[in-house]
Amino acid sequence: MNKPVSMLREFERRDAAEIGRDLHGFAASLYPICRSITGSGIRQTLAMIQDRIPLRIHEVATGTPVFDWRVPKEWNIRDAYMKAPCGGRVVDFQQCNLHVMHYSIPVHATLPLNEIRPHLFTIPDHPDWIPYRTAYYKEDWGFCLTHNQMLELEDGDYEVCIDSTLEDGHLTYGECYLAGRSSDEVLISCHACHPSLANDNLSGLAVATFLAEHFTLRDLRNSYRFLFIPGTIGAITWLAQNRETIGRVRHGLVLTCIGDAGGFHYKKSRRGNAEIDRAVACALRDCGESSEMLDFSPYGYDERQYCSPGFNLPVGCLMRSVWGTFPEYHTSADNLDFIHPEQLARSLRLCVSVFDVLEDNRSYLNQNPCCEPQLGKRNLYRSTGGDSIDDEIHARLWVLNLSDGEHSLLDIAERSGLPFATIHDAAELLCENGLLEEIAVRASTL
Amino acid sequence: MNKPVSMLREFERRDAAEIGRDLHGFAASLYPICRSITGSGIRQTLAMIQDRIPLRIHEVATGTPVFDWRVPKEWNIRDAYMKAPCGGRVVDFQQCNLHVMHYSIPVHATLPLNEIRPHLFTIPDHPDWIPYRTAYYKEDWGFCLTHNQMLELEDGDYEVCIDSTLEDGHLTYGECYLAGRSSDEVLISCHACHPSLANDNLSGLAVATFLAEHFTLRDLRNSYRFLFIPGTIGAITWLAQNRETIGRVRHGLVLTCIGDAGGFHYKKSRRGNAEIDRAVACALRDCGESSEMLDFSPYGYDERQYCSPGFNLPVGCLMRSVWGTFPEYHTSADNLDFIHPEQLARSLRLCVSVFDVLEDNRSYLNQNPCCEPQLGKRNLYRSTGGDSIDDEIHARLWVLNLSDGEHSLLDIAERSGLPFATIHDAAELLCENGLLEEIAVRASTL
Amino acid sequence: MNKPVSMLREFERRDAAEIGRDLHGFAASLYPICRSITGSGIRQTLAMIQDRIPLRIHEVATGTPVFDWRVPKEWNIRDAYMKAPCGGRVVDFQQCNLHVMHYSIPVHATLPLNEIRPHLFTIPDHPDWIPYRTAYYKEDWGFCLTHNQMLELEDGDYEVCIDSTLEDGHLTYGECYLAGRSSDEVLISCHACHPSLANDNLSGLAVATFLAEHFTLRDLRNSYRFLFIPGTIGAITWLAQNRETIGRVRHGLVLTCIGDAGGFHYKKSRRGNAEIDRAVACALRDCGESSEMLDFSPYGYDERQYCSPGFNLPVGCLMRSVWGTFPEYHTSADNLDFIHPEQLARSLRLCVSVFDVLEDNRSYLNQNPCCEPQLGKRNLYRSTGGDSIDDEIHARLWVLNLSDGEHSLLDIAERSGLPFATIHDAAELLCENGLLEEIAVRASTL
Repeated sequence: MNKPVSMLREFERRDAAEIGRDLHGFAASLYPICRSITGSGIRQTLAMIQDRIPLRIHEVATGTPVFDWRVPKEWNIRDAYMKAPCGGRVVDFQQCNLHVMHYSIPVHATLPLNEIRPHLFTIPDHPDWIPYRTAYYKEDWGFCLTHNQMLELEDGDYEVCIDSTLEDGHLTYGECYLAGRSSDEVLISCHACHPSLANDNLSGLAVATFLAEHFTLRDLRNSYRFLFIPGTIGAITWLAQNRETIGRVRHGLVLTCIGDAGGFHYKKSRRGNAEIDRAVACALRDCGESSEMLDFSPYGYDERQYCSPGFNLPVGCLMRSVWGTFPEYHTSADNLDFIHPEQLARSLRLCVSVFDVLEDNRSYLNQNPCCEPQLGKRNLYRSTGGDSIDDEIHARLWVLNLSDGEHSLLDIAERSGLPFATIHDAAELLCENGLLEEIAVRASTL
Repeated sequence: MNKPVSMLREFERRDAAEIGRDLHGFAASLYPICRSITGSGIRQTLAMIQDRIPLRIHEVATGTPVFDWRVPKEWNIRDAYMKAPCGGRVVDFQQCNLHVMHYSIPVHATLPLNEIRPHLFTIPDHPDWIPYRTAYYKEDWGFCLTHNQMLELEDGDYEVCIDSTLEDGHLTYGECYLAGRSSDEVLISCHACHPSLANDNLSGLAVATFLAEHFTLRDLRNSYRFLFIPGTIGAITWLAQNRETIGRVRHGLVLTCIGDAGGFHYKKSRRGNAEIDRAVACALRDCGESSEMLDFSPYGYDERQYCSPGFNLPVGCLMRSVWGTFPEYHTSADNLDFIHPEQLARSLRLCVSVFDVLEDNRSYLNQNPCCEPQLGKRNLYRSTGGDSIDDEIHARLWVLNLSDGEHSLLDIAERSGLPFATIHDAAELLCENGLLEEIAVRASTL
Repeated sequence: MNKPVSMLREFERRDAAEIGRDLHGFAASLYPICRSITGSGIRQTLAMIQDRIPLRIHEVATGTPVFDWRVPKEWNIRDAYMKAPCGGRVVDFQQCNLHVMHYSIPVHATLPLNEIRPHLFTIPDHPDWIPYRTAYYKEDWGFCLTHNQMLELEDGDYEVCIDSTLEDGHLTYGECYLAGRSSDEVLISCHACHPSLANDNLSGLAVATFLAEHFTLRDLRNSYRFLFIPGTIGAITWLAQNRETIGRVRHGLVLTCIGDAGGFHYKKSRRGNAEIDRAVACALRDCGESSEMLDFSPYGYDERQYCSPGFNLPVGCLMRSVWGTFPEYHTSADNLDFIHPEQLARSLRLCVSVFDVLEDNRSYLNQNPCCEPQLGKRNLYRSTGGDSIDDEIHARLWVLNLSDGEHSLLDIAERSGLPFATIHDAAELLCENGLLEEIAVRASTL
């Protein structure tokens, strides 16, 4: 049989535990890199993604106007430390790249502790964790350290050194485009601008990379565009550079915080009932994990830009734990132990099932609309009457009943409560038996 | 006063206990007959219904094409049994007509028990009950027996005999048409194809028959068409034979499983918000019994056919316990003890109140739309102010307030929370006082 | 800065406790007056309101036709009593003006107790309370007394005297019109026809009077019309006399029972989703008190008339405890102890916040609709990244995201869950920064 197999079915043939280990391993290989919104860290990250999928790297020069913004200076850092009066490094960038406030301007001076204090960031409630702080759009410098570290600092003069450069250069992002049979695009976007933070950034990068890898070998109906970009300014830059073709984006998903132990959260697009919103809702309903749908709000990840009123793209955001709601968020505790192989694998699987909906959602016309067709004579019904029927037969009845030109398979999956895959299988089988005909244009995307 | 009295009020003058006994008695008289989708059992049943109401009997020849189906061969049975090696009947159709799988082809042979086993059906979880099984559309034979019976069967050769005929003949159904002032039709459909099963089939037949009887003497606004038909193929046949006039069906109700001890369940039409759906919801709300509204699904009774996409008729299904959800369903335990006189009477009463809504739902125009009219000077208000008002006065205020040409009495009953009958009485009274005028066309059915 | 300050902010600068005492004091000064739907009591009341706000007094002659009604005769009363056989006053209007049934015709006779009994009203469940009863539209007389009083009455002949007049005269009502920049009107209506009843009538009169007082000094966008009228016949009379200009009423509120200890109840207008309904819902959500939204029903206060189908004005009714649901309603227990200074003050504050929404609800157009504008460079964002943001910044993001020409500030307040005032402040600030432009016509009122 030559019919296309759902990506999910194909995916499920593989060993989930192995996929999970690979995802976690890939995240682990990216973990030590000191990423920021520009600079060598993100370049290095994109190069490692490029080892796995066809990735086009874009470099956009500092100062380029992008809507209300300009591409910022490029920031690079070699070293940073605070040296105690007695001479040892008490805060050391070499030990953890969170120790420096990102985008700190270069500084090298010896200062009394009380003059340094306004530049120090800690988390008193979690005295062993280092916070993550940035100063992208204000020239400033700072160190992030554990609260316990700070408590141990004795008065005196400290050598503070941030060996960084903040100069004209480029903003770098990666783009992987997989052409499908239609020019309709599905946008998958994740930020690649956070340093050693695992759930917030690496989980999304790993899942998106593996998803693209899974898709490269497949016959796709939609075209897929994966963006690996610095948060906010990267999305703004990409949107500014692709204004003419943005209209091709029919569905989109921002992926982030998708590897922790929590259940799924999906933040709906600004439209609230776009096909992507419904596809995710349906996939979550069927996935067997706990999940929650959240309404759109204008704060969050890059859906903020995609859903700005000038674009209003149908882009939602898929997460496990929601950024800002778990204490490890934006701290050194968001490390490789905070993300789990099996959770990453399940997130990847969920994404595959979402895109299966987008690939397979169609509308059909029942060719025998008056009364049920006689399924029994086509071996599509049970043979002995009187007993109950199973989901496969239920699905056939649902598809026949609602294939009136006004319902897509997604509509039917929603209304019947049956898994989308079961509904899709029923439609395929009924088509093969001449009981359904596909309608050229998808009802639900008009 | 010459105004029409609501059917419900008239009905309530009668002795409910007596009505219940009559309904149960009529079901009991039908109980022993071996009905199937064709044959002498259904003919005998229809003849007994014809004794009570004007019934036209239709005979449709085997092989007649009806949409995707053909009218099947006619099945009749005289006897069936399994004789033990020692010679006694261990399974005997004469004791219970469920013992044979309906539509079994004739068989007469002596076979070892292990060759017979694939033809035996039991219910291990209820070892004293006989299951009900059919093989309408596959040539096969079988026996249904209690699990205990099967456990007692010793190895050896058994004489199996099914003295049935499966030959060209006719499909039989009954139709009772009660002409009203309008050609708009209300369809009441129940299946008459199950053998000795009381709730599933006889309860619906009894209530529908008594309903028709109750209606024959009344001045009706709608026309009513009662169908007593074999399930599935009967509905398909009727629809095929009445394609041109199907458009007259404005409301419809399938009645089944309506005599057991459970609360009401109403499965909405495919449209979900048809006037029949709202009329039943309103009647259930007011009836004082527990009830639940269920969404449409394409599996069930003959609403499957009426609500197929080519027709999409506004037909729902009224039940007490839902088929398939109670263990007695399709077993010998669905017997005359499983249905109760008072439940049958209450179901009949509920139906009458539903049809009262369909009969009396109209729209009116308030003749004094600016401010309330002065009800006091017409003796339509309490005379001493300061105290609370009763439902009758509330109903008058509601009818006046919403009689703006956009609300029917059903709309008003829904929005006010007051019983439909109270709203209808208020409208009649306000009409008599010149405060309302009926609008020619019903708003809610446009 | 010359921009208009929200009325609520201005109001909050004042001492709430003092406002509460003033409101209660004003109610107390009105309490002893024997008001009815016509006569000197309501004239006296209006004169006292006129001492505080610019009030135009209207006198409409008895017999004037007003829609289906006529202005009734004017009722005045000097004295009323029942004298015991031994000569003492056992029921005495001078002690409490509730002792007489209002609109009692004059009577002076000596009658045996059993002939008087049909004219006596008590509350057996609350034997120390005097009920409030009226006979506006039926010529009758009666006394209201405590049940204990009645139990003590001995048989014998009593002198009954009601020294009232029921003659051609006038119906009196007061109207305070505060012109705003637009001729769009906000109607605030309260009844002034109940005698010594504090929550039911005085609480509304006091809050409405103070509201008008608060508004007189302000630059208003909408025009405000305060009506102090006899219930039912007053609203009918006003509507009849203002038919041509009624269309100017864009929002309206009936105020009553607004001083007791209960939480707020708002009965929605007949339209159910008018801007006033949404403004009140939003103000209640933000006010920090318990509250409940009630659907419209055609019984209640003068919203009955304003929402009659010929007008269907967007007028709701704001209450604390709902009339008829508390035992003190329409009894002598609805006295000055039943209403509380702090509750009156909070009710006034709630009204101010409702009208703030009506004053400030506008639609804006985001001038940088593609992606977020860079708030940081305008000092509209936090400067250090990585930490959470506060409500003020959230509000800016919401306003920018939804200012697409299809959402008003009220829409944004509803969708964001943020207080209307916070949303409005954000819009003002964004306007000052050139990021928003007001759209001439309000989207939500089209």
